[in-house]
Amino acid sequence: MEFSSKLIAQAVKEIAKLPGIGQRSALRLALHLLKQPEAYTNTLSQALQDLRQKVRYCQKCHHLADENICEICTSPKRDNSMICVVESSQDVLAIENTNQYRGLYHVLGGVISPMAGIAPQDLQIDSLLARLVDNKEVKEIIFALNPTMDGDTTIFYITKKIQPFNLQTSAIARGVPVGSELEYADEITLGRSILTRLKM
Amino acid sequence: MEFSSKLIAQAVKEIAKLPGIGQRSALRLALHLLKQPEAYTNTLSQALQDLRQKVRYCQKCHHLADENICEICTSPKRDNSMICVVESSQDVLAIENTNQYRGLYHVLGGVISPMAGIAPQDLQIDSLLARLVDNKEVKEIIFALNPTMDGDTTIFYITKKIQPFNLQTSAIARGVPVGSELEYADEITLGRSILTRLKM
Repeated sequence: MEFSSKLIAQAVKEIAKLPGIGQRSALRLALHLLKQPEAYTNTLSQALQDLRQKVRYCQKCHHLADENICEICTSPKRDNSMICVVESSQDVLAIENTNQYRGLYHVLGGVISPMAGIAPQDLQIDSLLARLVDNKEVKEIIFALNPTMDGDTTIFYITKKIQPFNLQTSAIARGVPVGSELEYADEITLGRSILTRLKM
Repeated sequence: MEFSSKLIAQAVKEIAKLPGIGQRSALRLALHLLKQPEAYTNTLSQALQDLRQKVRYCQKCHHLADENICEICTSPKRDNSMICVVESSQDVLAIENTNQYRGLYHVLGGVISPMAGIAPQDLQIDSLLARLVDNKEVKEIIFALNPTMDGDTTIFYITKKIQPFNLQTSAIARGVPVGSELEYADEITLGRSILTRLKM
């Protein structure tokens, strides 16, 4: 694509590096910016730079944080007796949006995956154990990992590691999604949802 | 959506103001930036600011330009005998990408639309007439406006205005798109494409 303007070409090139945005969408966004007040572009680029330069990872739970310790870990309103173990910060955000969980989190930064060469020491597993040593309040570890082979391997590995702490462990329920139709559920999910049926 | 980080919340808010990008996509983009080297975010926001602050409109053809006169108007390689009249800079970029046209352009900035309250004096029509007075080289005006009622009205209006200059006028061909199937073409397009058939 040619743009007959180096400024547009440069902006399109940089925007198109973002995931899911091709050259045409990038051009559409660039031309949109040109129609908006200059203040918007300034606010946008400032927000992006602030994000990239100032966001840190919480030293306790490794979730994204504005300070050394994240808002969730410092909040007095959270239930310190539960830690929900997740793969990534996205998962924390997804669970927070349900408004159903008021405990703490622990972001592993991935799952154990022999295929991808990710070993337990590449993940924040040791720091989870260290948290359990420091914090005697914790009563339950909730695993909210993706329902894959690697997720299950990771749950198994951590469960063995935390055995000495004598905690309640649990994993998020797997079953037929709310609002979906039974006939479209895959057999493994449907089969498991029968085996793990809840008493009413 | 809650983000437990003001920096993320701010970035998502600003990104989600872009057209076609919702909160979830904005979050995905923000988290993507966090995984990239800091230099990328700096280059991106610099490119956006440069674009917004430095891009101008060409004083001759009103296309986007890095200088007072755009690269197309200044290029010695372009054919000064033709002016292609388009609605927006996007259309110039689209035509440039075909590599089929080496003449000049004139960006109207819209089309005459009584419904939307856009009158001829809101568009760059007078400046087109001024160009024709200044530049005696021009032999042909090519209309490349969207095939709508408003587009046709605008063509009719401008054609009448430029009658004194005694120029060849033409409009881009309308017909069945290359690669499409006849049975899916709408009746008006198909009907016109029969009436305006080309001798082989």
